[in-house]
Amino acid sequence: MIRLGVLGYGYWGPNIARNFSITEGCRLAGICDGNPDALARARKAHPGVELSTDCRKFIASTDIDAIAVITPVSTHFELAREVLRNGKHVFVEKPFTATTDEAEELIELAAQKNLKIMVDHTFLFTGAVRKIKQLIDDGTLGNLYYYDSMRVNLGLFQHDVNVIWDLAPHDLSIIDHVIKETPEAIVATGENHFSEHEYVAYTTIYFQNNVIAHLNVNWLSPVKVRTTLVGGEKRMLVWNDLEADEKIKVYDKGVKIENSENVYNLLVSYRSGDMWAPKVDTKEALKLETDYFVDCVMNDRTPFNDGEAGYRVVKMLEAADRSLKNRGELVHL
Amino acid sequence: MIRLGVLGYGYWGPNIARNFSITEGCRLAGICDGNPDALARARKAHPGVELSTDCRKFIASTDIDAIAVITPVSTHFELAREVLRNGKHVFVEKPFTATTDEAEELIELAAQKNLKIMVDHTFLFTGAVRKIKQLIDDGTLGNLYYYDSMRVNLGLFQHDVNVIWDLAPHDLSIIDHVIKETPEAIVATGENHFSEHEYVAYTTIYFQNNVIAHLNVNWLSPVKVRTTLVGGEKRMLVWNDLEADEKIKVYDKGVKIENSENVYNLLVSYRSGDMWAPKVDTKEALKLETDYFVDCVMNDRTPFNDGEAGYRVVKMLEAADRSLKNRGELVHL
Amino acid sequence: MIRLGVLGYGYWGPNIARNFSITEGCRLAGICDGNPDALARARKAHPGVELSTDCRKFIASTDIDAIAVITPVSTHFELAREVLRNGKHVFVEKPFTATTDEAEELIELAAQKNLKIMVDHTFLFTGAVRKIKQLIDDGTLGNLYYYDSMRVNLGLFQHDVNVIWDLAPHDLSIIDHVIKETPEAIVATGENHFSEHEYVAYTTIYFQNNVIAHLNVNWLSPVKVRTTLVGGEKRMLVWNDLEADEKIKVYDKGVKIENSENVYNLLVSYRSGDMWAPKVDTKEALKLETDYFVDCVMNDRTPFNDGEAGYRVVKMLEAADRSLKNRGELVHL
Amino acid sequence: MIRLGVLGYGYWGPNIARNFSITEGCRLAGICDGNPDALARARKAHPGVELSTDCRKFIASTDIDAIAVITPVSTHFELAREVLRNGKHVFVEKPFTATTDEAEELIELAAQKNLKIMVDHTFLFTGAVRKIKQLIDDGTLGNLYYYDSMRVNLGLFQHDVNVIWDLAPHDLSIIDHVIKETPEAIVATGENHFSEHEYVAYTTIYFQNNVIAHLNVNWLSPVKVRTTLVGGEKRMLVWNDLEADEKIKVYDKGVKIENSENVYNLLVSYRSGDMWAPKVDTKEALKLETDYFVDCVMNDRTPFNDGEAGYRVVKMLEAADRSLKNRGELVHL
Repeated sequence: MIRLGVLGYGYWGPNIARNFSITEGCRLAGICDGNPDALARARKAHPGVELSTDCRKFIASTDIDAIAVITPVSTHFELAREVLRNGKHVFVEKPFTATTDEAEELIELAAQKNLKIMVDHTFLFTGAVRKIKQLIDDGTLGNLYYYDSMRVNLGLFQHDVNVIWDLAPHDLSIIDHVIKETPEAIVATGENHFSEHEYVAYTTIYFQNNVIAHLNVNWLSPVKVRTTLVGGEKRMLVWNDLEADEKIKVYDKGVKIENSENVYNLLVSYRSGDMWAPKVDTKEALKLETDYFVDCVMNDRTPFNDGEAGYRVVKMLEAADRSLKNRGELVHL
Repeated sequence: MIRLGVLGYGYWGPNIARNFSITEGCRLAGICDGNPDALARARKAHPGVELSTDCRKFIASTDIDAIAVITPVSTHFELAREVLRNGKHVFVEKPFTATTDEAEELIELAAQKNLKIMVDHTFLFTGAVRKIKQLIDDGTLGNLYYYDSMRVNLGLFQHDVNVIWDLAPHDLSIIDHVIKETPEAIVATGENHFSEHEYVAYTTIYFQNNVIAHLNVNWLSPVKVRTTLVGGEKRMLVWNDLEADEKIKVYDKGVKIENSENVYNLLVSYRSGDMWAPKVDTKEALKLETDYFVDCVMNDRTPFNDGEAGYRVVKMLEAADRSLKNRGELVHL
Repeated sequence: MIRLGVLGYGYWGPNIARNFSITEGCRLAGICDGNPDALARARKAHPGVELSTDCRKFIASTDIDAIAVITPVSTHFELAREVLRNGKHVFVEKPFTATTDEAEELIELAAQKNLKIMVDHTFLFTGAVRKIKQLIDDGTLGNLYYYDSMRVNLGLFQHDVNVIWDLAPHDLSIIDHVIKETPEAIVATGENHFSEHEYVAYTTIYFQNNVIAHLNVNWLSPVKVRTTLVGGEKRMLVWNDLEADEKIKVYDKGVKIENSENVYNLLVSYRSGDMWAPKVDTKEALKLETDYFVDCVMNDRTPFNDGEAGYRVVKMLEAADRSLKNRGELVHL
Repeated sequence: MIRLGVLGYGYWGPNIARNFSITEGCRLAGICDGNPDALARARKAHPGVELSTDCRKFIASTDIDAIAVITPVSTHFELAREVLRNGKHVFVEKPFTATTDEAEELIELAAQKNLKIMVDHTFLFTGAVRKIKQLIDDGTLGNLYYYDSMRVNLGLFQHDVNVIWDLAPHDLSIIDHVIKETPEAIVATGENHFSEHEYVAYTTIYFQNNVIAHLNVNWLSPVKVRTTLVGGEKRMLVWNDLEADEKIKVYDKGVKIENSENVYNLLVSYRSGDMWAPKVDTKEALKLETDYFVDCVMNDRTPFNDGEAGYRVVKMLEAADRSLKNRGELVHL
């Protein structure tokens, strides 16, 4: 039985607490937040669970085995380091850290202490992403050509980060999870208007073997779009996360180029067959993730969304940020 | 009465010929194509119109006042120059030329000879683009923030150009027409797979005053998308060209940033009101354009889609191409 | 301050209890259900609220001023009668009663005792229906022609009623609320397959002045549809309740028939103008309804969704049922 | 080689003429129309084809073997009878005739003379309907439960017939083609407003074995809808004819009722699996139909869309009409 503490009970913390509270092998052992209103909400939702406003004491408590850090990204490093130093496993909200240096230090520390880090890349546990990964892994799509995501809406302007740090971690964690090729370089463009932080950004990621990914993120769109195209050699898919029932459509469509000695005589044949919308599992992603965390801790397994995965996403965010500031500079990874 | 000749009767030429043949003030006086099959089709569609396979003679003919050059882009320059040298007005398929140098020479030649050049930027004559221009010009959208277009489908792979030269001229001509700010620089990324020519490309155009445009073009998409978001200070619109009836939706949505001394205290207010789909004129765009060509020639007016407009689009294409080859290099315009 | 009791804590009761618990001028004073599991859920959601399994005692309690009866329709009559006999106001889940005779008796009893009846026609409090009513009342649509609703999905088969009693009360309450003309007769057709109860039914309602309504309800549809067309002399609207943002679209479209002496020379002119999606209020309908109940009780107002409204809906259900059993018999209202 | 004449060159005649003109084994041998404007259009489209304004002479011509009667329904009977009396095969626009009596007389006459009748039920030759028939015939859907069609738009008001005679023949011919059970009775309701002819109508058709069909046709809808649900024991499908690519979606969804001694203990299990959009052939339906006509005539085959099929559709139209006039009277077939 793991005694789990939740540190930070703002917007996302309640979801984390609720899921850990119903996860087998786990007991919600404490909630900590400096804000009295947050604690009042926590008391109502989880009567009987110990509450705290003192973050140091909370992290040091001997009644807690693991802590979920659900606070702003700028605080992740110090809090997670403290958690690890106190010999506790840590579950960290995404993005993992504000810099790759911070991520590296945490990974090293956890390794020394033989503790687990899990980064909350929740999307990896959705039925849609699990299905996409399966369709790539089992060869249904064939060799990958491109991944093209649009994630825009009239969104909450963040005060401390730009739209890439806010919206792109979702896609970056998915890309890291499903694309086998290694990312090599990033180009990002965008604009700000209301503050120093960009409200719109376009990020291209070059991978080995001519694979390419592109993310269109925007806080200032009149309509909400959550659509990703994935092109493969054998089949292509469209993932529309706003669809209630048919989130993923697999198209038996494609192009075949026949070998030809003369490039000007490209022999292109088109294939256009059936479309197929596989049933997508609707279990709550976060519950699967908290189950997985408990399983990894109890059975000493390394989660696929470990500190290394968190590091790789932060590395892409850093690179995108630098490219963005320099109007599309090619930043090697 | 203008006697108009059509040079090139392949895929697009028949549409040009048909529209000029029913344009008032104009007579379809001849069609020229080296391909006998094309001429056979021309004969059936336009019985009585003189046909020719000899392009030099055709351009020199004293029975023709103006010529529409509807041939591959690599031939535009030589043919259009010959037309102008023979003292005839010229209507040129888009993109205008293969290089800006060629465009400049044609513009200069036409000016010397006091002849008209019109570039076939057909989309500018659609009801949708005319409505968008009106909504920007009359201040409905307010100051422009961004223009974001997605133009993808399982498309015909071209042998001689990449996807930017094939699909982006539509958006570039529209951007040139409706955005008042001056474009300053371009960043383009993309990938090829089947030949040296990119099948997918992402192009960002930076304008003065923090305005930004982005084009997503792809020949290898399982679904056809023709959607453009335009964000303005007062309102935003979505143009879905695949909708039969409601191509343009104007959203009374937006964000207002209150002035604040401390940037960390951004006071953002959101506005979310009605949506409105204005009726869009459904007259055939090409017919409006051929009418306009005849009007410009007869009444000695300079068309807005003149050689200069053609030049500006080619300049953006050249820049995008160079950026694309250098993985997102920032190319100043 | 009204002390409100909720009788029945199955599927819908929790929503009723939750909304009354946060309604100003009201205190959730008790919850009664014979099922221990239901009471356990009630205890968790509403700690401190008195719970009961004895329905007679609950209704007789001197600590309660009004009772919400949220039980199967077959029990509404006896329970609501008991509530009224005990001098308490009653809020009854829809449909009001199983027969018009029952409805009449309750209405009479409430009148004698000067007590309020409110029937839970929740849809009347949605932003969408309030907007439709406004568009009809303020003349935007002009004289009404038709109301055509499709409400189908792969639904829960009910054991005790057919699909009309399950799904049509929504539309019947809306029709009763927004159409000014008097309904005159009903024709219903349908089929059963798995039991004696029809899984699909088509109901036509004839109104005065050639107004017509039609309801398509089906428990066995592969896709969920919640779409209503409303045709008026001046404008027409489409209400798609599954749309997140643009639930109602008003079309400036229509037909005008010019007077003509010869009916064979019908002069029809078509109008096709803009479309307009008014912003629809997203406040929770049930909360508005519980507020309204408290207001009606405290200030002695007659609600528009009173016993009479409940009676009119039950009358249409009875007629539809009879017509359905007799394969489309015309049943006068 | 069949020499085919087209009688009637109004709205639909040009499509018929064009397709017969390119049908192998057939020569377009003449076009007849009383209207000089129509003949002028015919001359332009089919230079060299003999034109006529004298319908009697045309029908009697010895240069013609078969005639397509593409005129208003009220004239079908007399013209087709004349064609048959002159020993020619006849292709008749739908609906076949204005009454079943007329249909019977034509069928008898053709039988006597050993001539072919084909009724232009074009929809039966579309890729979508051929696919639906295949999915029913090969057992993919299992035993049929219902067929539910919505065919509405802001349509042309006809002067001489109501909306059922205008729009329902499409669905009736499809129902006749794909549903194996025998139709038993019809109930139709609707309303008129502008003339004696109903602009909206709802038609229910009862079949043997509890199969039911329903047609919703309306000339006064603000939006165009062409959607049909088909429910079967094993699978269900949605046919949206306005979709460009995925017209038919097959859902592996359904309900299974377990046998139970007590009907109040219905054991219902729901199945919700993948969705699948089979590729639908896009060949022009009318071309397939004209090919088929020529094949039937040349090889002495009886077409499935023969006079009998035309008669069955007219019989349902007559019944629907009578039911409509008597407000939903059950009319046995």
